[in-house]
Amino acid sequence: MGNNLPEWRSRLASALHRNRAKHHSRYFQLATVSPEGLPKNRTVVFRGFLESTNTIQIITDSRSQKAAQIFNQPWGEICWYFTKTREQFRISGYLQLVDCDNDDLELIAARKAAWQKISDNARSQFMWPNPGEARSDDLTLFTPETPSAHEPVTNFCLLLLTPQKVDHLELREEPQNRRLYQLQSNGNWTIQTINP
Amino acid sequence: MGNNLPEWRSRLASALHRNRAKHHSRYFQLATVSPEGLPKNRTVVFRGFLESTNTIQIITDSRSQKAAQIFNQPWGEICWYFTKTREQFRISGYLQLVDCDNDDLELIAARKAAWQKISDNARSQFMWPNPGEARSDDLTLFTPETPSAHEPVTNFCLLLLTPQKVDHLELREEPQNRRLYQLQSNGNWTIQTINP
Repeated sequence: MGNNLPEWRSRLASALHRNRAKHHSRYFQLATVSPEGLPKNRTVVFRGFLESTNTIQIITDSRSQKAAQIFNQPWGEICWYFTKTREQFRISGYLQLVDCDNDDLELIAARKAAWQKISDNARSQFMWPNPGEARSDDLTLFTPETPSAHEPVTNFCLLLLTPQKVDHLELREEPQNRRLYQLQSNGNWTIQTINP
Repeated sequence: MGNNLPEWRSRLASALHRNRAKHHSRYFQLATVSPEGLPKNRTVVFRGFLESTNTIQIITDSRSQKAAQIFNQPWGEICWYFTKTREQFRISGYLQLVDCDNDDLELIAARKAAWQKISDNARSQFMWPNPGEARSDDLTLFTPETPSAHEPVTNFCLLLLTPQKVDHLELREEPQNRRLYQLQSNGNWTIQTINP
């Protein structure tokens, strides 16, 4: 990334700012493809950008189905709809799962920082029984000892999406504004104004 | 479908009712897979159920990329997050595009009914220049003559998603409630309570 933020970053920052009163403005839907070639879609929480990059941070559990899906097809598309300003960002790019075995010093630090930033309550959920399995009757399993706030548990993963294409649609305008941003091999972003 | 609605329909009806004050509660994100095997994700509007079925109705333009994606992989996953009650439905199933060439009498009627239900403004958008192409400078193209409210234009499509699996997550509860509903070959739905 050069010194300047691409235009879509400013537009996204503006959307986040103008919708900040709504907690759900930091939630978006992430689509992936299963090993069988089927689309999967779930709501996740925006955890900011990886420092000095355009890479979007998400957190996930290595026991979730996302992990296997990403291993098979490391591409995702975020659909992020802002309810107050009525605008949508579709952001597609490479996915990278940063798990406890990662040996990149910067990514190890980013995973640790993400763990430290979440609440005790959010951290405890990584100690819960395996997601997707038959519900445990033993409710004490859902009130584990609070894990260390300093060192992430092994199943805690940082999930990174590095955008290659961003499609921004503003529904308020008539006709609606739609801009397509695409990353070039030289690191620059092209901008096209397209029909909605 | 038997005489009784499956349980997930009641839960979805309840979510729609309790979130009815928010217009965006009728929007959800639909994930599909592109011919290249990549995930695609966009916000669409819920247009009710096809009469006497569990099939979800959406409308789309035959000129949109969705159409080609569905032809190649007729499977979709809806992620529907209700912001007020903090619950998510992930609904996956078969997709069927009902275009102007469809010869099923019931589907022809459903497509026509969907066209008649939308606003003049929404109908006009189907007359706009090709979506995704470079933006026309000629703004008059975005104020076409209002099309007939009776007969759908040829590029207007009804898009149907027939659910096979529904994953309902309630975030308000502690621990969160999560139920998985799956359609069996005999037409019944199984219900499993699973770990969130």
